[in-house]
Amino acid sequence: MPDKFVYSFGGGTAEGRADMKNLLGGKGANLAEMANLDLPVPAGFTVTTEVCTWFYQHGRTYPEGVDRQVEEALRRVEDLMGAKFGDADNPLLVSVRSGARASMPGMMETVLNIGLTEKTIPGLIARTGNERFVYDAYRRLIQMYTDVVMEKAAGIEPPEGRGVRAQMEHEMDRLKQERGRRLDTDLTVDDLKQLVTAFKKIVQDTLGQPFPDDPMEQLWGAVGAVFQSWNGKRAITYRRINGIPDEWGTAVNVQAMVFGNMGDDSATGVAFTRDPATGDPAFYGEYLVNAQGEDVVAGIRTPQQVTLEGSRRWAKSNDVSEDDRKAKFPSLEEAMPEAYKTLETIYRKLESHYRDMQDIEFTIQDGRLWMLQTRTGKRTAAAAVKIAVDMVSEGLISKEEALLRVEPGSLDQLLHPTIDPKAQVKVLTRGLPASPGAATGRVVFSADDAVTWTESGDPQKKAVILVRTETSPEDIHGMDVARGILTARGGMTSHAAVVARGMGKCCVAGAGEVLVDFHAKTFRVKDTVVKEGDWITLDGSTGRVILGKVDTVDPVLSGDFGQIMAWADEVRRLKVRTNADTPKDSQVARNFGAEGIGLCRTEHMFFEGDRIDAVREMILADDVAGRRKALEKLLPMQRGDFEGIFRAMDGLPVTIRTLDPPLHEFLPHSDAEIEELAGKMGVSADKLRDRVHSLHEANPMLGHRGCRLGLVYPEISEMQARAIFEAAANVIKEGVKAIPEIMIPLVGVARELKLQEEIVRRAAADVMKEKGIQFEYLVGTMIELPRAALTADKIAEVAEFFSYGTNDLTQTTYGISRDDAGKFLPFYLDHKIYPADPFQVLDRDGVGQLLAMGVEKGRKTRPNLKVGICGEHGGEPSSVEFCHSLNFNYVSCSPYRVPIARLAAAQAVLKERGGQGPVKE
Amino acid sequence: MPDKFVYSFGGGTAEGRADMKNLLGGKGANLAEMANLDLPVPAGFTVTTEVCTWFYQHGRTYPEGVDRQVEEALRRVEDLMGAKFGDADNPLLVSVRSGARASMPGMMETVLNIGLTEKTIPGLIARTGNERFVYDAYRRLIQMYTDVVMEKAAGIEPPEGRGVRAQMEHEMDRLKQERGRRLDTDLTVDDLKQLVTAFKKIVQDTLGQPFPDDPMEQLWGAVGAVFQSWNGKRAITYRRINGIPDEWGTAVNVQAMVFGNMGDDSATGVAFTRDPATGDPAFYGEYLVNAQGEDVVAGIRTPQQVTLEGSRRWAKSNDVSEDDRKAKFPSLEEAMPEAYKTLETIYRKLESHYRDMQDIEFTIQDGRLWMLQTRTGKRTAAAAVKIAVDMVSEGLISKEEALLRVEPGSLDQLLHPTIDPKAQVKVLTRGLPASPGAATGRVVFSADDAVTWTESGDPQKKAVILVRTETSPEDIHGMDVARGILTARGGMTSHAAVVARGMGKCCVAGAGEVLVDFHAKTFRVKDTVVKEGDWITLDGSTGRVILGKVDTVDPVLSGDFGQIMAWADEVRRLKVRTNADTPKDSQVARNFGAEGIGLCRTEHMFFEGDRIDAVREMILADDVAGRRKALEKLLPMQRGDFEGIFRAMDGLPVTIRTLDPPLHEFLPHSDAEIEELAGKMGVSADKLRDRVHSLHEANPMLGHRGCRLGLVYPEISEMQARAIFEAAANVIKEGVKAIPEIMIPLVGVARELKLQEEIVRRAAADVMKEKGIQFEYLVGTMIELPRAALTADKIAEVAEFFSYGTNDLTQTTYGISRDDAGKFLPFYLDHKIYPADPFQVLDRDGVGQLLAMGVEKGRKTRPNLKVGICGEHGGEPSSVEFCHSLNFNYVSCSPYRVPIARLAAAQAVLKERGGQGPVKE
Repeated sequence: MPDKFVYSFGGGTAEGRADMKNLLGGKGANLAEMANLDLPVPAGFTVTTEVCTWFYQHGRTYPEGVDRQVEEALRRVEDLMGAKFGDADNPLLVSVRSGARASMPGMMETVLNIGLTEKTIPGLIARTGNERFVYDAYRRLIQMYTDVVMEKAAGIEPPEGRGVRAQMEHEMDRLKQERGRRLDTDLTVDDLKQLVTAFKKIVQDTLGQPFPDDPMEQLWGAVGAVFQSWNGKRAITYRRINGIPDEWGTAVNVQAMVFGNMGDDSATGVAFTRDPATGDPAFYGEYLVNAQGEDVVAGIRTPQQVTLEGSRRWAKSNDVSEDDRKAKFPSLEEAMPEAYKTLETIYRKLESHYRDMQDIEFTIQDGRLWMLQTRTGKRTAAAAVKIAVDMVSEGLISKEEALLRVEPGSLDQLLHPTIDPKAQVKVLTRGLPASPGAATGRVVFSADDAVTWTESGDPQKKAVILVRTETSPEDIHGMDVARGILTARGGMTSHAAVVARGMGKCCVAGAGEVLVDFHAKTFRVKDTVVKEGDWITLDGSTGRVILGKVDTVDPVLSGDFGQIMAWADEVRRLKVRTNADTPKDSQVARNFGAEGIGLCRTEHMFFEGDRIDAVREMILADDVAGRRKALEKLLPMQRGDFEGIFRAMDGLPVTIRTLDPPLHEFLPHSDAEIEELAGKMGVSADKLRDRVHSLHEANPMLGHRGCRLGLVYPEISEMQARAIFEAAANVIKEGVKAIPEIMIPLVGVARELKLQEEIVRRAAADVMKEKGIQFEYLVGTMIELPRAALTADKIAEVAEFFSYGTNDLTQTTYGISRDDAGKFLPFYLDHKIYPADPFQVLDRDGVGQLLAMGVEKGRKTRPNLKVGICGEHGGEPSSVEFCHSLNFNYVSCSPYRVPIARLAAAQAVLKERGGQGPVKE
Repeated sequence: MPDKFVYSFGGGTAEGRADMKNLLGGKGANLAEMANLDLPVPAGFTVTTEVCTWFYQHGRTYPEGVDRQVEEALRRVEDLMGAKFGDADNPLLVSVRSGARASMPGMMETVLNIGLTEKTIPGLIARTGNERFVYDAYRRLIQMYTDVVMEKAAGIEPPEGRGVRAQMEHEMDRLKQERGRRLDTDLTVDDLKQLVTAFKKIVQDTLGQPFPDDPMEQLWGAVGAVFQSWNGKRAITYRRINGIPDEWGTAVNVQAMVFGNMGDDSATGVAFTRDPATGDPAFYGEYLVNAQGEDVVAGIRTPQQVTLEGSRRWAKSNDVSEDDRKAKFPSLEEAMPEAYKTLETIYRKLESHYRDMQDIEFTIQDGRLWMLQTRTGKRTAAAAVKIAVDMVSEGLISKEEALLRVEPGSLDQLLHPTIDPKAQVKVLTRGLPASPGAATGRVVFSADDAVTWTESGDPQKKAVILVRTETSPEDIHGMDVARGILTARGGMTSHAAVVARGMGKCCVAGAGEVLVDFHAKTFRVKDTVVKEGDWITLDGSTGRVILGKVDTVDPVLSGDFGQIMAWADEVRRLKVRTNADTPKDSQVARNFGAEGIGLCRTEHMFFEGDRIDAVREMILADDVAGRRKALEKLLPMQRGDFEGIFRAMDGLPVTIRTLDPPLHEFLPHSDAEIEELAGKMGVSADKLRDRVHSLHEANPMLGHRGCRLGLVYPEISEMQARAIFEAAANVIKEGVKAIPEIMIPLVGVARELKLQEEIVRRAAADVMKEKGIQFEYLVGTMIELPRAALTADKIAEVAEFFSYGTNDLTQTTYGISRDDAGKFLPFYLDHKIYPADPFQVLDRDGVGQLLAMGVEKGRKTRPNLKVGICGEHGGEPSSVEFCHSLNFNYVSCSPYRVPIARLAAAQAVLKERGGQGPVKE
């Protein structure tokens, strides 16, 4: 351990720097950096994180020499601030704040106004001319210090209501009632003096010792309390949840106090160097005269705009006349032109120094500007895109840096409507954020009602939200017209979720508290009953179900967005395809930049119109002949779909998966539905029931599905292959370039694929012969079972491509049914048993090994093996990065995630070269 | 390719040897070996498999020189047999038979009596003095030759009924009817002559060519037909199913014909050098005077015994007087003492030469003995054990060889009753062979009825078979008293199957054709209705459900069995533990040699008596306090069970798994049951229904189970750990050595195990403190998810042992629910998509990689990591061998499979040293 424990800053210089966060914490390092930039930072010093570590390793004591270094640093602060700690005439007050490497907001302690004692109070009153201010500061110090230092840090856990804090609050309430004061600010100097006396008595009575009147004792008490708070319950929990190591420790920042509440010459404010909502390159901030920092945030008084331009805009949108504005809400630019000018210079300096938009905090004391904080500013996705592109034009950053400045996942905001961030909402319940975006509409409970309402011509009925216990493929027409879909059951891969994502439509799925009464046309959440026609709003990005109408904001795709995408395309190596089942979805995805289809699920087509009848006829057939007859009806319909998709994807590869779900998914299950269908199909209900019963599975996820269907019923694969190839041949004759890739699902052993491949190749040869045309095609497989990855060398003897089905692969590798995980997954995430939901973020340690193994073994057998991913992870940025690192050829994701994947793929390249993603705080 | 294509044998010498099976086929190699031993083998020669391969590689032609070599070999046969092929006076007849490396019984062609022509017939009649015999042989040659050579091998596929074979059979029937002959043997010489004429006309009319009258043409025609038959449909299918490569080809054996049907001085027979049923070291065989080989097998005439002693024993058990016996059924020893003496010498020579029990075929022609075949004899498990032990005493083989002579899987026969092999049975339907053994009893349909019947004192009601759609844990008392269990649903790991195996009780599970009508007390299979009280018989080793009473044979564990086991224990390195949940099962397993418990499933204990009430109370509790209250009731019950198990396993490790199944398994599901239980528990049916509903899972196999329960409800793991440790402490005080090993199920990430381990260690420390006693224990985990194997290095940081749960690991690696696999697994096995059922024989290629990876990674972290297996595979010989090869510490299996595993473990060592297992033909 080095013997430097304390780093000073202030007066245009500092011993620390921005890149010393590990030693000084984030706050300390940035204060040092600003000091180095010669910005007006109240002088102070940082006690390093190493002291914290030492503190805990040595029975909560300090290393030799810390006390001396603190005193030296304090002298320096006194010199710079022209005041003396504990001095009767010109006392220096300091704040003591925590500051860890990673931000842990509110998890550790702060003590302000250290240095106020019986001795220093008169001097400060004399200096400030503000007795009330000083006594208010003093009573705050007593409250804060006794609570934080004397009680919490000392490990005292008083019974409920018997702690010093509670007693003091009670005393203050009592006094306010007695004197008829409504607000704290109504308290007079005398009130405050009386409070101080009462507080001190509480301290003595409760803790058996007086409130310390020695400034150095106060200082060390506060420093110790901050270190102690590193191991407070809240902090430990926070670290556990956020995976922050216990060994890191916190630094302690001791800094001269400055006050924005010393009169009309004082103020405090926050600002962004550019507009964080739009990204406009205009300085944007708010301030309050004669106020403390927290007042701006608290929103009790209306804050004023920092810039004149901003102020005028504000007045206009709030119907405030220019005269009123000038009189009551002048901008800082007008009210304190000198301070403003300094601030303007500073913000420009900070932005060009940090080369990014900054979020700054400042205080003006007696007309003098002090900088208290600077950090990278949070921004909306739209702002991130605009700022990144603008900064490239301004020559501040490179294109590569610009690409790294935009969080790919945040692009979702740009592609879907979102809840107006200013709206007040009443959250009824929550479900899974199954498909992003927001939607407001009136509740209907059936797909038919959704259609009737929206087609009624009544504008009041135009916007509907379809609410179902769970959706089935027969609800498609209703989902299509609804603004959003809410289901009570089902997971992120439930029918509702998958279909809604494909449609780019908002969906909240598996909202377990929602109890739907289909017949009464109501749903209930605890005691709240929502009826047909009631307005609700869904937030598909967070899973919130909100009562009533909430304004949503529509996305606008800017030219900057296109610019970022174009730069991403220049950089990335991974191709980005889409998962799309219809010509329409395919077109949407292509517009978003998709370079082909990575997964076309043929079974979704089985539900449209009366196709399901033929499907059911096939399932109920007694023999091959009967199945073939039914399949012949399906063939032209499937062929038509494929033709449309090939046209939409002209020139791009289209991967089509043969039938995957178990057959019982195509049959009804309730007795009533069975009776009805039996009548319709002209078979006995008993026969139908027997078939439903015989197809029932204990674990359908692991049942008779995927290629297991195509093997036992080869005529199904045969029909599908033929439909694909006939479609390809037909559109090729139109001049369309069709590139079919046939994908066999759920292969576990090579021979399964071999037998299916033979059927596909036979169909291709037959069609080429019949149509007198040649075309290229590939035959490959999903890798979605651990065994497939483990034996990828064998499977690649047959497969021309692999597409990782990471949804099922994650399910089988973890042994978790995604539909059932709701019972323990939230608990697992809360307790960090899983670092992240493995169905959202690909699990590199486990599932990732299978990906790596499969690619390696597969390419050993077939060096030019094409490898992609078509699970949900294909549109998740960190998973895209992982696929890039494994040298995949492409990722495939739902249409609305294509831009996300494009950007993530570009970032993967840049990170490989050493670039860093956007900072997360 | 070498230029020797033909290998001669006969006359006390041969060009081939027994170890040349690849070149000469099994039959040819053994004939050569017998000739080399100077045994009286009819002379002949073998055309090699290489000729077959060449034949197919060169457009069905022969290599240069084969014809010359065949002619030379034929000359040698003529010299040795003293007859000439095609000679008018003393003609030689030959047989032409296939003979591949691996036995393919009945899949290829044979032609007998080659060499009979218009020219040779008179000579043969003169030589044999038996005109009828000669014409019968001739008409057989025509039938066989024209069918096999002229039609099949020529690729002619005549329409139904228009082939030569069908026409000839029709002609023969016609003639028999016309002449009033009942049997073929009633046909006179004239009849046969007329048939020959008719047959030849059919040949000419149908095939447009005459029946060949040239002996060499016949010979080459037959040789070619045998080669052709290698690629016949039947043979191809057989090879595909049995994994025999197409490239192997078949050899062709041409051998002088000898006839056992040339009069009373001729005979034919089969014999075993020891009794194949009991293993008794007594020569055992049957013969028929004046008969052909197939007559012995066909059973038209009662065969006679070869030895005098055997004949006397036969007479006694068939109530035949000694006079009658001597007159009508004399032994070969009496009837043809010279030939018998020769045979006796030969069998002894063969046994000591082959050093194993032989199955031989012989023919006596005119008093002269000829050997036609010798091969290793099939035998029962009891015989295998006895023969192996005896041969060691006799100094014929070593102990190690003896161990390799017994098929471990066959030991099942020794441990359970079996169906009397002589019984005629009427198979009603089939299910899964869920628990081996056989049982006969009267059908009952409820566990209560099973108890009532068996306790009634009525001997007619003592033996019952419990028939259920599926069993639930509440049926245990009925299963306990039943002789066997039959279920209509459920797989090899269903409740019925697992419990029955543990009890060593016969069970046929998942017999899908069985429709149970619980109320009517009947079950139906197609049109057959079986009522309560009807007799049925189950064969749990094959899955057969048999109508009526069938005699079963009880097992007797011989001293020889104990000897083999003792030798196995000397050799093996793998320990063998058992899966047992009760003190009783533990004792049974220990008697079978179990060296500890590898898997004790605590949940099975939850169903006994009224424990289930407390379990349900726990599940329905609203909060932790409620759950704890219910768990406190369970604790003493579990503790009592564990005490019993520790006592039974005194000094041996006992691995106890914490709760594994999803909670809904403990609740009823039908409305009626829910109502009933609600009443009993004093909760509202709605609440109970809600809970059942909320616990419902789409894929329970992948749901909220295993450690996921213990994590969300830590109080359950806590109670279980406490019960285990309190039990250990209690029995230790009695002087019992308890060695508990606590096993956490379904771990996928290391942190799951870590959190559960903390609970277990805390409970251990608490109990040690409370009881004032120290004890050793281990904490480990099941490895039953792919992710656990993939991250075994991390998991071994916590786990002190791994136990592979290969049932679930196979399910997740393949993505197959064992309960649902019935829909396609039979198809997969029939079509060799899987080489074997992966739930029975461990899949080395896929799942095996995870086993190997887990052991390697686990031991890298923790070199002394104890590794075992507790899935079904732990008792399957080839899987045991695989575990041995991976350096597992132990395998664990159900009590009745412990001996199998002990022997398999010994064989694994011996095979490692180069030994070979029992030959399978």
